[in-house]
Amino acid sequence: MQRIHEKVAVIGAGSWGTALAMVLADNGHEVRLWGHKPEQIEEINTLHTNKKYLPEVILQDSIMGYGSLAEALSGVAIMVLAVPAKAIREVLRNIREIRDEPLNIVHVSKGIEPDTLLRISEVIEEEMPAHLIRHIVVLSGPSHAEEVSVRQPTTVTVSSKDMDAAEHIQDLFINQHFRVYTNPDIIGVEIGGALKNIIALAAGISDGLGYGDNAKAALITRGLAEISRLGTKMGASPLTFAGLAGIGDLIVTCTSVHSRNWRAGNLLGKGKNLQEVLDNMGMVVEGVRTTKAAHQLAQKYNVNMPIANALYDVLFNGVNAKDAVDSLMARMKTHEMEDLANVLVGRLQDE
Amino acid sequence: MQRIHEKVAVIGAGSWGTALAMVLADNGHEVRLWGHKPEQIEEINTLHTNKKYLPEVILQDSIMGYGSLAEALSGVAIMVLAVPAKAIREVLRNIREIRDEPLNIVHVSKGIEPDTLLRISEVIEEEMPAHLIRHIVVLSGPSHAEEVSVRQPTTVTVSSKDMDAAEHIQDLFINQHFRVYTNPDIIGVEIGGALKNIIALAAGISDGLGYGDNAKAALITRGLAEISRLGTKMGASPLTFAGLAGIGDLIVTCTSVHSRNWRAGNLLGKGKNLQEVLDNMGMVVEGVRTTKAAHQLAQKYNVNMPIANALYDVLFNGVNAKDAVDSLMARMKTHEMEDLANVLVGRLQDE
Repeated sequence: MQRIHEKVAVIGAGSWGTALAMVLADNGHEVRLWGHKPEQIEEINTLHTNKKYLPEVILQDSIMGYGSLAEALSGVAIMVLAVPAKAIREVLRNIREIRDEPLNIVHVSKGIEPDTLLRISEVIEEEMPAHLIRHIVVLSGPSHAEEVSVRQPTTVTVSSKDMDAAEHIQDLFINQHFRVYTNPDIIGVEIGGALKNIIALAAGISDGLGYGDNAKAALITRGLAEISRLGTKMGASPLTFAGLAGIGDLIVTCTSVHSRNWRAGNLLGKGKNLQEVLDNMGMVVEGVRTTKAAHQLAQKYNVNMPIANALYDVLFNGVNAKDAVDSLMARMKTHEMEDLANVLVGRLQDE
Repeated sequence: MQRIHEKVAVIGAGSWGTALAMVLADNGHEVRLWGHKPEQIEEINTLHTNKKYLPEVILQDSIMGYGSLAEALSGVAIMVLAVPAKAIREVLRNIREIRDEPLNIVHVSKGIEPDTLLRISEVIEEEMPAHLIRHIVVLSGPSHAEEVSVRQPTTVTVSSKDMDAAEHIQDLFINQHFRVYTNPDIIGVEIGGALKNIIALAAGISDGLGYGDNAKAALITRGLAEISRLGTKMGASPLTFAGLAGIGDLIVTCTSVHSRNWRAGNLLGKGKNLQEVLDNMGMVVEGVRTTKAAHQLAQKYNVNMPIANALYDVLFNGVNAKDAVDSLMARMKTHEMEDLANVLVGRLQDE
């Protein structure tokens, strides 16, 4: 394939932003990696490492660190937004002050904003004036940054309201190790990515309690049904949840020690409280914030979400983690098809 | 719940038969555990252990070992058939010689017979005269025997053509740790249980090659789509594959070191050939036989099954495992929804 080399700004030099910068550099693009800590930018530009987030790798020379948003974005038409979901509004407010040309915005964060209940692409639309947005594309799927950075085989999904824009981003990222698929269902791709963090917290709790793979598989199975129920009510296609951004991402997040949300849940299962866990992690645990949003969404859309609600009680109402998981295992419907059928029937009736 | 205590014969004293015997004993039933090795029966009856299969546990006194099928089945109306799929015909032929009363048959094996392409319940119907069958029930789901035997929380599905029979078996097995759900789709429950072993072999190969969780999640996701495509063509409901006997069992088999099929795949990924793997395992690797059946089913039903076919080539045509997995990762459809939609659309068109 003849590839067009482009200038791309990756905003956010955490593990995922850095790993994606490496994919882009492998593909011959000129990559500007922005971070807000001067010593980290210095490390990237002098040592070509980012040891706090990806201790094992050496960055390509074509990745340049930037501490200034204005410089990072100067003359660039594509921005990969890789900051934690809760930092997106602030970063976009800074960008709109310094930018007057439209941008292709690829967001790779996972979350739903509590209270507003907006998906990330909706937050972007709210913060960025229309004349600064060319297209918004989401990139999601089963993709631990640590593995991507060492070129392990990985598959992801890109989605956008405009499929030409999604295909442009597919071409930008795709290579032999990093396989990129398109999916027109941006609602489903964003919801799948966000809500899987809740199930990962629950799976971590189950493991932390000393329960085994059988219990975890049951939680993941029921979690997928729960995500599908809510997602279809919010306008997603049920098929997306059977794909990479649904069950794929859910599996990788729930069964891997790389997952921050699983690790946080694991500590909760071992008896720590939320504050101790957050102190211990020292990184953002997106699932905690998403649990609050999911609890609100379940009420707004009148959807039965037993796992999200049980987790909400553990995180915010002092309910004992073991009691919560035990009651989840006991309360499942006797006839599993009734529950599963609701997913599809709900969707088909709406159409 | 007031439970009726029954006499149950468990035919097959491997790890799964023994673990299920323990569940039944916990529920107060009189359990007769049949095996064909005299020294194993002696061990069960004197030491109350079954060290080869479940080294960690002590069996309840109410589990009695039997070396004689006639004695084990005398005066018993419920038989749990827990022998490897390939031994079922022989065991049933022996049973029909010694039995003249109808039996409720609960089968817990996973497989599809190569060449005949019959599901286990169909094999039972073929071998057992109608007057010896009261009902056939299948029990399946994410359930490592090792965890069930130490009373870790576990969920399974039971299914039958007769839902009263399925509910009877649900009542027989259900307790606080072992949650049993019913599903009327016996075709889907049997196919999900059988075909997941193929994906577990593929996942094991990927891990054996040194690939990471991202690659494995992609294989599992595509594997579920492949199972659903074939299953719906064979008359199953697509919803079953989203449940415990589908994605639930698939996850537990692909991500756990307890899984025999995963372990066999792992050895293949590390460069061993099929004969070396089988010699090394010393246990039945059901997925090898099922791969042959799936390869035949894909042709019979004209269904695209890239993972099953790639695995067939590795097992039986000397194709290099790394080449097979790499080509699987590269050949997936660009638009993932096309592939996923085939599952449902195929089904809906048939109805």
